Amino acid sequence: MAFRGITKLFVTQTRFSQLSTLSYKRLTDNDVEILSKIVEGSIITNTDDLETYNTDWMRRCNAKSKLVLKPNSTQKVSQILSYCNQERIAVVPQGGNTGLVGGGVPMDSNEIILSLSKMNKVIEFEPSLGVLTCEAGCVLENLDRYLEKFGHCVPLDLGAKGSCQIGGNVSTNAGGLRLLRYGSLRGNVLGIEAVLADGTIIDCMSSLRKDNTGYDIKQLFIGSEGTLGVITKIALLAPIKPAYKNVAMFSCHTYEDLLQALSLAKSRLGEIVSALEFIDYEAMLVVNQHLDLKCPISLAPFFFFIETSGSNQEHDRQKLDEYLEEVYGKALVTDGTVAEDSSKAAYIWGLRERQVEAGVRVGWIYKYDLSLPLNCLYELVQETRKRCKGLASYTVSYGHLGDSNLHLNVYNTHYTQELKDTIEPFVFEWTASRGGSISAEHGMGFDKAKYIYFSKQKESVEIMRQLKRRFDPNGILNPNKTVLLDDSKCIRPPPIGKYNH
Amino acid sequence: MAFRGITKLFVTQTRFSQLSTLSYKRLTDNDVEILSKIVEGSIITNTDDLETYNTDWMRRCNAKSKLVLKPNSTQKVSQILSYCNQERIAVVPQGGNTGLVGGGVPMDSNEIILSLSKMNKVIEFEPSLGVLTCEAGCVLENLDRYLEKFGHCVPLDLGAKGSCQIGGNVSTNAGGLRLLRYGSLRGNVLGIEAVLADGTIIDCMSSLRKDNTGYDIKQLFIGSEGTLGVITKIALLAPIKPAYKNVAMFSCHTYEDLLQALSLAKSRLGEIVSALEFIDYEAMLVVNQHLDLKCPISLAPFFFFIETSGSNQEHDRQKLDEYLEEVYGKALVTDGTVAEDSSKAAYIWGLRERQVEAGVRVGWIYKYDLSLPLNCLYELVQETRKRCKGLASYTVSYGHLGDSNLHLNVYNTHYTQELKDTIEPFVFEWTASRGGSISAEHGMGFDKAKYIYFSKQKESVEIMRQLKRRFDPNGILNPNKTVLLDDSKCIRPPPIGKYNH
Repeated sequence: MAFRGITKLFVTQTRFSQLSTLSYKRLTDNDVEILSKIVEGSIITNTDDLETYNTDWMRRCNAKSKLVLKPNSTQKVSQILSYCNQERIAVVPQGGNTGLVGGGVPMDSNEIILSLSKMNKVIEFEPSLGVLTCEAGCVLENLDRYLEKFGHCVPLDLGAKGSCQIGGNVSTNAGGLRLLRYGSLRGNVLGIEAVLADGTIIDCMSSLRKDNTGYDIKQLFIGSEGTLGVITKIALLAPIKPAYKNVAMFSCHTYEDLLQALSLAKSRLGEIVSALEFIDYEAMLVVNQHLDLKCPISLAPFFFFIETSGSNQEHDRQKLDEYLEEVYGKALVTDGTVAEDSSKAAYIWGLRERQVEAGVRVGWIYKYDLSLPLNCLYELVQETRKRCKGLASYTVSYGHLGDSNLHLNVYNTHYTQELKDTIEPFVFEWTASRGGSISAEHGMGFDKAKYIYFSKQKESVEIMRQLKRRFDPNGILNPNKTVLLDDSKCIRPPPIGKYNH
Repeated sequence: MAFRGITKLFVTQTRFSQLSTLSYKRLTDNDVEILSKIVEGSIITNTDDLETYNTDWMRRCNAKSKLVLKPNSTQKVSQILSYCNQERIAVVPQGGNTGLVGGGVPMDSNEIILSLSKMNKVIEFEPSLGVLTCEAGCVLENLDRYLEKFGHCVPLDLGAKGSCQIGGNVSTNAGGLRLLRYGSLRGNVLGIEAVLADGTIIDCMSSLRKDNTGYDIKQLFIGSEGTLGVITKIALLAPIKPAYKNVAMFSCHTYEDLLQALSLAKSRLGEIVSALEFIDYEAMLVVNQHLDLKCPISLAPFFFFIETSGSNQEHDRQKLDEYLEEVYGKALVTDGTVAEDSSKAAYIWGLRERQVEAGVRVGWIYKYDLSLPLNCLYELVQETRKRCKGLASYTVSYGHLGDSNLHLNVYNTHYTQELKDTIEPFVFEWTASRGGSISAEHGMGFDKAKYIYFSKQKESVEIMRQLKRRFDPNGILNPNKTVLLDDSKCIRPPPIGKYNH
């Protein structure tokens, strides 16, 4: 894998300004020997092989960790953490390494990588309640395939499904395409087994749909990006796989038309809607030009995607047809297509799902994942595009419109500090001024951690820090991610009113 | 309100064996004066008026708190807690007082009651995402009525909806009838404002569907029964109200038939199912005899209830008809009725929802709320019935079959220790031996707190205690509820194998 020099430069620049004051041990040969023994030699130390683990999917982080450990049991994870905690060796838990905020890659060469990829066994599927129990390293798509045999499916769907792992999904509280239908992953996780920094195994496994016995400890591990513990097993609610799907795509000429088409889809399609997504014109352009995916309908400023999933083909199609009649009748959409077979449906989804892949081909991605009120969501895209004119190759947007979740990406052939300073902290400030979230579904990782005050109040952040200190007193778990212990490293949002709100 | 002497006796007996070693202040006239000033005189000190607040809905607890405070703002809640924390005055937060495990009533005469009933304002409804923001004291049914104007509804439905408050619902992570459709309340709460024991206001309010910025602190307040903080405001996802409902009720001759009818309902009715409930023969008998509700179909050992909610009447009815054809064809059900109008639907639901009301009329209720694997769920009812023969008036069962949640109630004209000892800890031991939960949706309150080890491991309970100590170092918030700080007060489950499992 070849890397642009600028990648290393970027990481080097940001790394040193971020590191907390906690001191970590310099990894010794003796440490490597002891840790290697625990995992019975399942380690990686070769520089070339390490590259994949040291580099994030968007190729923006490129640290130099010297050791990857691949335990195949919870007991081994426990032994590893127990040793590392005692020796103050920093540990970065890693799943499929498909994260987009640098949450799963090391920041320093003395951090070791704990890969969950060998913990990839399905434990069982309980059909009467639809509960899947598995190890954290199972790849999402493999779980979906496994469940298909029982007529069930996973309650989330992501572009990265072919390589992301369920443990990583849960650790980041991943969102994705089906959230609209099945709700947040947090609500679908019934049980978790996790290992604390000191090696204590916390068994909150359960395949019960309801359990109100005491505080729901497992919630602390969901979305905390491995900073409070390493998730090793999961029990997940797996809904019945809908028998029939329809995928449709439309052109919309204004953002207002798009919002109206969205609102009608929610009310008319009701219980059968499973995804409501959009991409804008420039996003379409990038997949056209860099992945050679052609737009199957006439070009327009916005493209709206609808997926329905139901148990009766005829009923679903009738509901969709009535919806089509209404949105065409009201001229909310100007052109559209309904996929007649699964390959056409996959093609349409490719236009939406392969956006990041296209962006990677442009060169450098400045990536933002925001929750914003629907009425002002696209205003930010327009403002950002204006600011980046002449500095960026593309300013694209797409996302989960049904959840009010915007993905705003700026692409350029290479990294420039000027472009970065043009976008940040502007995007975060604008989002905070509208009461939005600066990380809707990707998490904070390394990228966003310092901006936490843009979405959370001081008192809440203080509680987060206390939790981190309680769960990981030596700070060995995924240091400098999610919640920074050193308050002086955090950036404050400007006073409200800066962006005329 | 008149009370049986046995009630007081029972509370007195159990109270002293439970109290933790933390010392609380004896409430003085000066305290009452200061606290009264904070709430501008909105207090209750009259013995007769206090009775309603001191007594739980099932009339099993009857403490003698001398003061109820009714603040009308978060700031006043904050001032109250700040003072009580400083003075070590124990505070019991109370919503609609409809809890079934003694979580919302005081245990000692020096505890004061913090009623949220005056914080009952809807703040706003945001239609594009369907998010309701309100104060904690809003009555659930009032919120549902408010949302109806916008074509939305609350994502939970309980028998107590006419008096329970949303703050209490969230504090207990209430389940109810619609969980099957909309998922757990935990997944539907988008934002919370809560006041910590020391008066600190934690603002995790958000009307965003997605927000992954840092640890999800608000989860700690959901289901912790006011022991970690007092919830004052809530933002709740309010789904679009389904346009059409069908309610059907069937007789089943065996538990196996009931399970098969359930399984078919899940797969055939798919996305339109909103409730799958059951009651057994003896439960039907109790509502017949004590509420004069007659069974509209022929009697059988089990009665199965189905509710569908959808956007197209014709489609829903067709799905239901196909389902009926199948279950009758397979002889899984022997008789049944589909409600033709809303009053008939309400009558049918009354048979299921008014079970506790009927039980209260019998006299004393021994009440259990369990999650169990479906295949052994009814075995426990049969075992319990056998044990209680000659000692109890009725042993009834009903519950949320679709969620594998059993309500097992033993009724008698009065409390007897012998009957209690016959049921407890047997029911908890049996449940633990099958990997069930000893509290599915009602919470731990005062009743179940000591049985936490029957559903949770030592390490998890230890984390809960640390959280309690961190959030409420003086232990003033709802003492002796949910998680007992004094480990010696907790009962251990017997070794696995006691019940031949």
